[in-house]
Amino acid sequence: MQGNRRNFLKLGATSAAVGVLGQAAAADIEAPQVGAIAPLAAKLGLRLVTFAPGPQDKPRVGVVFDDGQVIDIGAEAKRQKVKLAFDPDSMLSLIDSGDQGLVQVHALAERAALLRIMRPTVNHVRLLSPIPRPRANIYAVGWNYLDHFEEGKAARVDRVVTEYPANPVFFTKGVNTMNGPFDTIPFDASNSTQVDWEAELAVVIGRGGRNIKEEQAMNHVFGYAVYNDTTARDVQQKRHGGQWFKGKSLDGYGPMGPWIVTAAGLNLDDARVISRVNGVEKQNASYKQMYFKIPRVIAELSRGMTLEAGDIITTGTPSGVGFSRKPPEFMKPGDVMETEVTGIGIIRNVIKAEG
Amino acid sequence: MQGNRRNFLKLGATSAAVGVLGQAAAADIEAPQVGAIAPLAAKLGLRLVTFAPGPQDKPRVGVVFDDGQVIDIGAEAKRQKVKLAFDPDSMLSLIDSGDQGLVQVHALAERAALLRIMRPTVNHVRLLSPIPRPRANIYAVGWNYLDHFEEGKAARVDRVVTEYPANPVFFTKGVNTMNGPFDTIPFDASNSTQVDWEAELAVVIGRGGRNIKEEQAMNHVFGYAVYNDTTARDVQQKRHGGQWFKGKSLDGYGPMGPWIVTAAGLNLDDARVISRVNGVEKQNASYKQMYFKIPRVIAELSRGMTLEAGDIITTGTPSGVGFSRKPPEFMKPGDVMETEVTGIGIIRNVIKAEG
Repeated sequence: MQGNRRNFLKLGATSAAVGVLGQAAAADIEAPQVGAIAPLAAKLGLRLVTFAPGPQDKPRVGVVFDDGQVIDIGAEAKRQKVKLAFDPDSMLSLIDSGDQGLVQVHALAERAALLRIMRPTVNHVRLLSPIPRPRANIYAVGWNYLDHFEEGKAARVDRVVTEYPANPVFFTKGVNTMNGPFDTIPFDASNSTQVDWEAELAVVIGRGGRNIKEEQAMNHVFGYAVYNDTTARDVQQKRHGGQWFKGKSLDGYGPMGPWIVTAAGLNLDDARVISRVNGVEKQNASYKQMYFKIPRVIAELSRGMTLEAGDIITTGTPSGVGFSRKPPEFMKPGDVMETEVTGIGIIRNVIKAEG
Repeated sequence: MQGNRRNFLKLGATSAAVGVLGQAAAADIEAPQVGAIAPLAAKLGLRLVTFAPGPQDKPRVGVVFDDGQVIDIGAEAKRQKVKLAFDPDSMLSLIDSGDQGLVQVHALAERAALLRIMRPTVNHVRLLSPIPRPRANIYAVGWNYLDHFEEGKAARVDRVVTEYPANPVFFTKGVNTMNGPFDTIPFDASNSTQVDWEAELAVVIGRGGRNIKEEQAMNHVFGYAVYNDTTARDVQQKRHGGQWFKGKSLDGYGPMGPWIVTAAGLNLDDARVISRVNGVEKQNASYKQMYFKIPRVIAELSRGMTLEAGDIITTGTPSGVGFSRKPPEFMKPGDVMETEVTGIGIIRNVIKAEG
């Protein structure tokens, strides 16, 4: 963290110097989508966004500095006359390119930091999900904080599972659950009236593999993002015979972002997973409370099943979800669902009636 | 069917005339992978394969005639000087192109039939899954034949679900379950010793949509294929807290093929779903016994969740699977799993030890 702060101190100064642009543009936005930006755990860490500079622009990959400036990787590579090992319009392409691509991005960002020019900040661009279109369903872990399992026991319709599983519970979320960090979540009362929050830490796989050993698993992690495994609880629990997939897979029920922090940039033991609804804290737990830690999750999931670069695994939610509260609480149109992982950032999604 | 037979009678003759090639090439193969080819239900139907002419060739899309000849769509378009509306190396691209692409393929095939040249048959090329790499997990329906639900009640570990669900049960299979119609199924005793068969009819979506109405659903179907929802029963039932995903998602545990029969080519009411293990029939049920029929499955699945062109929905298996037999039966290396849907064809997969 110290190294990182030192590295980007000059950027803070640059940013102040070009504050006029920042203020003018900020006036267009009622409230900044991104507030204070948490420092990364190490200088080697990067915040990688998929963003669109303007409403008509196609998405591209960027790096976010501590002061919120967004470096457009493709543009920066052109300026620095660097031939990229990946397509700068695609986070998946960057992930596929492995160390080579990441080293290029690091170098580009370092040199970009030396140039004192006006650049948009995260509050002046549209932030999309870092991986707007996953290549497969999102892998998800159920019951991965002991207190969440306990709170659920009383509230669940299916009361047969009373002992904590000896292995992680896995299910998937459809590809169209993917949603931006500040986009709305559709609400259709004719389908579900029990829209519930589940703050989670998502892991992005960097190097694929099958039968990945637990002790090797962390070498397969590209980075981390904030994720909300938003759930239509009535659909999940009652409508489809006990299988969770459909109630977890409504369109937009999986916002992710605001960026990927690369593996070196997050100290997992310092990470807390937090949710707030309309500003009221609902969940707050440490990574230390996670039952099956990330290495075990990757090892179990990849047993006989190949994981691929760019795959997303969301690692389960702590206690405090709506359906196990007394009385149960669910979200309705207009509610603001905020999800935070400390050390990464905050995403904020408003529930919005469809129709 | 009559019209279709008439249309391709000349091809039978052509094929006989070029029998020398057929015999010479056939000698290289111990037993033909494809036996007798069932006629299609209507002249408008097509058998669409993804195939590789030789081991070094990249996969491409083809049409299979009644006599087994494979028409290479890309090559045929070049010969006929037709500019295709899709990439002839990709079934997904053909599906994406909608009616335009399908009309082109029909016309190309009709004209190709007039040309009496030697062409390879399905037994002289490598047949891949028609959609070798799906864009999302395969959607699957559980308990969709009443007799299979009843047989499972006694054998299931999770005995809480005793009433038949009022809505279909949905789960997904990972993208790497996808396997060719005549490829091997990996067996790893350290992971699962209960490899079970589930013969199914797979539906391929042609036109995507959300909240598709039941009465409109059949307009969204591109075609059908034979599918085996091969299952690691121990992993499905016991290892992951009752969620089926992982036990359904081992690599290769979802062979599909031998081709897609386009919607017009299959009369669903005539279709029977059959499995044989080492030649012994294990499952045999009519589409008429399916509980939630395809329109209802599409309507329920698309409720709040967008289906896309190329999505695959496998519709559930009838009674006769291994784990509910007395005593239970599972497959071991060397066993031959054969899956048939009458009116489409047969796929055949050998269980093979890994390592």
